[in-house]
Amino acid sequence: MSTTGKQIFTTLEADGTLTVEVAESAFLQPKGSQVLVRMEAAPINPSDLALLFSAADLENAEYSPGKIVAKMPEPFLSGSKGRHGQRMPVGNEGAGTVIEAGENPAAQALIGQRVACVPGSAFSQYAIAEAAMCLPLGDVSSEDGASAFVNPMTALGFVETARMEGHTAIVHSAAASNLGQMLNKICQEDGIDLVNIVRKQEQVDILKGIGAKHIVNSSDDDYMHQLRTAIDTTDAYFGFDPIGGGKTVDTIFKAMEQVAVSKMSEFSRYGSDQQKKMYIYGRLDLGPTILTPSYGFGFTLSGWLLTPFLQKAGMETVVRMRKRVLDNLTTTFASSYKSKVTLEQMLEKEAALDYRGMRTGEKYLVTP
Amino acid sequence: MSTTGKQIFTTLEADGTLTVEVAESAFLQPKGSQVLVRMEAAPINPSDLALLFSAADLENAEYSPGKIVAKMPEPFLSGSKGRHGQRMPVGNEGAGTVIEAGENPAAQALIGQRVACVPGSAFSQYAIAEAAMCLPLGDVSSEDGASAFVNPMTALGFVETARMEGHTAIVHSAAASNLGQMLNKICQEDGIDLVNIVRKQEQVDILKGIGAKHIVNSSDDDYMHQLRTAIDTTDAYFGFDPIGGGKTVDTIFKAMEQVAVSKMSEFSRYGSDQQKKMYIYGRLDLGPTILTPSYGFGFTLSGWLLTPFLQKAGMETVVRMRKRVLDNLTTTFASSYKSKVTLEQMLEKEAALDYRGMRTGEKYLVTP
Repeated sequence: MSTTGKQIFTTLEADGTLTVEVAESAFLQPKGSQVLVRMEAAPINPSDLALLFSAADLENAEYSPGKIVAKMPEPFLSGSKGRHGQRMPVGNEGAGTVIEAGENPAAQALIGQRVACVPGSAFSQYAIAEAAMCLPLGDVSSEDGASAFVNPMTALGFVETARMEGHTAIVHSAAASNLGQMLNKICQEDGIDLVNIVRKQEQVDILKGIGAKHIVNSSDDDYMHQLRTAIDTTDAYFGFDPIGGGKTVDTIFKAMEQVAVSKMSEFSRYGSDQQKKMYIYGRLDLGPTILTPSYGFGFTLSGWLLTPFLQKAGMETVVRMRKRVLDNLTTTFASSYKSKVTLEQMLEKEAALDYRGMRTGEKYLVTP
Repeated sequence: MSTTGKQIFTTLEADGTLTVEVAESAFLQPKGSQVLVRMEAAPINPSDLALLFSAADLENAEYSPGKIVAKMPEPFLSGSKGRHGQRMPVGNEGAGTVIEAGENPAAQALIGQRVACVPGSAFSQYAIAEAAMCLPLGDVSSEDGASAFVNPMTALGFVETARMEGHTAIVHSAAASNLGQMLNKICQEDGIDLVNIVRKQEQVDILKGIGAKHIVNSSDDDYMHQLRTAIDTTDAYFGFDPIGGGKTVDTIFKAMEQVAVSKMSEFSRYGSDQQKKMYIYGRLDLGPTILTPSYGFGFTLSGWLLTPFLQKAGMETVVRMRKRVLDNLTTTFASSYKSKVTLEQMLEKEAALDYRGMRTGEKYLVTP
């Protein structure tokens, strides 16, 4: 017995043709600890876009109902050799109602409940998910619960990482995002100083509105001065950047080093002894990361991803983080959306170009 | 009472004028655990050049006997604000005879002995050094002992760092340097696999001559293939790079990731789970470091410097490392030099342009 429904697939051929389409799929009966979820809402996160479209040319793509055919430029085509020819489901997370379950009692117990889940195939009418990763939503709506995993756990993961590495202050760029707003609330609750870097006055206003103390606007003429002052005030030599490409991280390292050097009593050719650490956790800018030789050798740049972090953090920490998310889903961890689209609407040109822009406060929600 | 002698100073003014000159200095009586060393030999290491000349324009400088006046370009002028107007001695390490000592018995015991030392002012006829950092040379000549610290301790430090972080293989670029040759000998002695990246056939030959197993020539057409094969054979996902600028590290990360991905059974949009780590320990290329988005988020790039490493490693490790250096100063840790120069000759145009090139096998030794 199987359930059929519509689902989005993305396929990149070796010749550079990317096809993203809505197709009918058969969903097998869930087994063991699996559940079958009728999906009701799924956010389009930057991490989904990396798989859905990567760097494909959506401006000049062919659009037909429920289908986009686009060209993938280099080096992204060669860079994703591993997926050439594979028809892949998309959508990290979402929420819906459990309609079938495997024989495992934990899975059975979820039947009929609305849950947040992390199927990896959430842009679909149905999805198979692991019961252990499902969060029963109770009174919270599926739309409110759709983003219960990626952003909340990432924001909490940043604070956990800071603590593990002995920091009490964090620098965050692109800081007015949904994730950035959550991070502000968490840091306020936990007494961690947060330096927010944004690039527009509206974003400054958004963050002021939720009580952020240290906000730096990279479009201001005195950006470096603002950034140094914020770092000096908070002792933030540690941070997270979702932009990846360009000089965002470089500028942050520079400001950190300038603050550290200003406190040194004598010159060292090697720079300050202050260790500076930044994590890149996204690629909003697909260009190369540029690091100039202007802050000595006391820097570390590393990638940060949620799944390896959760594995490293261990079950006890993960359970504690999930409980905190569930308890505060409509407050600290609330998400907001610009538009709701069906699976077909998601593949229309205007919508695709719009949500692919990943602009602050313009997230889309898929309601299949 | 004081001893007078000639010494090299480097001064960078805020207007961009760099003056490097030989001047008469008075050396005060050593105190406490200090000794006064009559310097007999000091190598010109890349780390000295960073302070001596930085990025100054030596081609178009004014040369007069014992003096160079050059212009410092941006961003290096602003980047070294901390030294503007300061007249600084130069020369990390060297060897010579202890002629006076402070009242401390360990210092007194060195009087009359030839020692390797790390005064930070070794380009000089005399230098004040810390007794605890002096290595009595016994029968070893001052020329053979002049490079007993920076390169040997750095090469040993790489192997110690690898062990501390759980690695049994190392990638090293610019690998035919004095330091690179030492690293080969250490790795052979310690059973660590070393992937040597060089850019010329002569360098391949040098390393073959000392028994290196994995040598990759970046000038060959199949460089990436060679590099992947060497990484695959050795499992080297960890390494050190003295070049800093450009794409050396990027290429190494790419090759590591390609090897890791080739072993994965299914595609992941986030790349492999294989953690890849590179340390930059020099700036042979003063351009920016370029990191392309082609190896996921499982990478870490960090700076590596000897002094912070030694502090972190602790006294017991440092003592063990120093003993190994002393026991093998004319074998494993032997250095060779292209030319010997006096302090005045060091500031002649032809010499300065030559050693500033930092070419493999063309190191200079200063004999004041």
